[in-house]
Amino acid sequence: MTGLTIALDAMGGDFGPQVTVPASVQALLHFPSLKVVLVGDQSEITRQLVSLGQKENPRISIVHAESLIANDTRPSQALRSSKGTSMRIALELVADGQADACVSAGNTGALMALSRSLLKLLPGIDRPALISELPTVGDQQSWLLDLGANVSVDADTLFQFAVMGSVLAEEQLGYKPSVGLLNIGEEEIKGNDLVKRCSEMLQQCSAVNYIGYVEGDQLYTGKADVIVCDGFVGNVSLKTSEGVARLFLESLKIHVLANPFKKLVAKWLFGGLFNRLKDLNPDQYNGASLLGLRGIVVKSHGRADISAFQHAIGEAVHEVERQLPNKICDRLEAVLLERHY
Amino acid sequence: MTGLTIALDAMGGDFGPQVTVPASVQALLHFPSLKVVLVGDQSEITRQLVSLGQKENPRISIVHAESLIANDTRPSQALRSSKGTSMRIALELVADGQADACVSAGNTGALMALSRSLLKLLPGIDRPALISELPTVGDQQSWLLDLGANVSVDADTLFQFAVMGSVLAEEQLGYKPSVGLLNIGEEEIKGNDLVKRCSEMLQQCSAVNYIGYVEGDQLYTGKADVIVCDGFVGNVSLKTSEGVARLFLESLKIHVLANPFKKLVAKWLFGGLFNRLKDLNPDQYNGASLLGLRGIVVKSHGRADISAFQHAIGEAVHEVERQLPNKICDRLEAVLLERHY
Repeated sequence: MTGLTIALDAMGGDFGPQVTVPASVQALLHFPSLKVVLVGDQSEITRQLVSLGQKENPRISIVHAESLIANDTRPSQALRSSKGTSMRIALELVADGQADACVSAGNTGALMALSRSLLKLLPGIDRPALISELPTVGDQQSWLLDLGANVSVDADTLFQFAVMGSVLAEEQLGYKPSVGLLNIGEEEIKGNDLVKRCSEMLQQCSAVNYIGYVEGDQLYTGKADVIVCDGFVGNVSLKTSEGVARLFLESLKIHVLANPFKKLVAKWLFGGLFNRLKDLNPDQYNGASLLGLRGIVVKSHGRADISAFQHAIGEAVHEVERQLPNKICDRLEAVLLERHY
Repeated sequence: MTGLTIALDAMGGDFGPQVTVPASVQALLHFPSLKVVLVGDQSEITRQLVSLGQKENPRISIVHAESLIANDTRPSQALRSSKGTSMRIALELVADGQADACVSAGNTGALMALSRSLLKLLPGIDRPALISELPTVGDQQSWLLDLGANVSVDADTLFQFAVMGSVLAEEQLGYKPSVGLLNIGEEEIKGNDLVKRCSEMLQQCSAVNYIGYVEGDQLYTGKADVIVCDGFVGNVSLKTSEGVARLFLESLKIHVLANPFKKLVAKWLFGGLFNRLKDLNPDQYNGASLLGLRGIVVKSHGRADISAFQHAIGEAVHEVERQLPNKICDRLEAVLLERHY
């Protein structure tokens, strides 16, 4: 690849340029072919760049944005009155072909609505979905979608999520991934109408390696490479996991890590084991992709720190290199042909 | 209380009388006023009682049941053709006033359908809900409902769940508990239509101390004493928690507990900390109550061991002592009066 450009919503997230600018500088060190466009308040971004000694870096450019989208802005509001905001301008750069992908830690609902409106959906896709990787017991890779882009969907949309997730996972795994539907039981009779209807559709689709229902306690066992659910369930499930991980980390801090000797013993005892707990911490494990668009958009967690935001930029770079939207488009076309003819 | 009788579905669960009979014997030791009726295969139950030296215990009686309800039986099937099964007979004993409560580790859907049909719903309740206690960071008590009795509900039903959960928690806490709705964000604009409508209803209800939305990562922080959601979301969330806890326990087993010296050091280091992980294990933390019925029904986890099933029996005893259905009925009447007049 000769060079790729990523537009960054420099103002998004809880920390804005304090995190996004240093993260960009670090990402440039990791990806020699990368260029970044920092979209946001020019003077604030410049101040950050100067403090990092990067004012004259030819791989960094700034596009000034007058304003930013607040966290409590509704998607409909964002569609009407986001002109001149950092998120919108970053997406416009992708829509105009001046950037290959956009990364933002801003308002999720606004990012989804603006992405749909500016980049457009792929043919055959009704809604975009947020997907992210999960840690598993056996150190396999595993993905969960939708993580909250859609609070209510129909069976067709859930089916499209399964196809998109399968394509993304196949690109990374190198084989046809197993796909499961998140449900409240493994038996055929279990679940609501939505999952039952989608399960029937997936059983008839040879393009997806559908293995049936997966329960909440199997999310981290690697039972399925890709796990599909609606955004409400996916978001609650992911955040519940974070909550459990935090429950243990807090207890550890109080009972063990506060004592320097115990801390030393714990490090010897566990080695890399605590990283599993941290893996479930979104500050460490960051970058959910918005699938289903004619462009690449990666959502970073709003609380992301520098290394987490850098991870999200890395995710965008990988998707550009893999030309993910084109591949989803091709697969979807094949699936639709199989279903309708 | 002069004496209470609990009818046990002795055949339910993965282990049947092997677990239910010894658990009953242990429960009798804990609750001097308790009597149990073991419903199931007479010869199998007798064999277990003989092996425990309890054949002549006057506080144990047996009611023979020809058959049992399989785990894959649909609720509708259970309604039509469950005559003579252990679960149905145990519930009939409650309906006839021969027992004060029923405990079963059998098929959840069948238990709910049969309970509704045999015990009837309380006035003002459309659906029963499964509720269970959660561990929290600060060792407070906290409850989550519905855990899977209903895969789809409307806002009225969710509102009723909030009222019922509030009554149960108040009985145990001794003060009016805070109640939150599980959602994918804390802001007013977040969530699907169901939670938004229910949130409006709760805001107008003075009988419930409603504190707004609670996110998945706040389930274990004690932010709300009672957290309300539909059964699909609640079940996925609880099982996800179990999955995360198991992820860590498995890693611990492999990396630490397999080595006797490391195990010893770990015990010194953590003391009771690991119990938090086990708290999330349903085998230890057992007994979900089916609220909203004119009788007391406690659902044990199917995989429950002896001490876990004993815990479920204890839960039923407490509910009988507190006369929970009457209290829910009174509160609900007050709420309905407030809403309609």
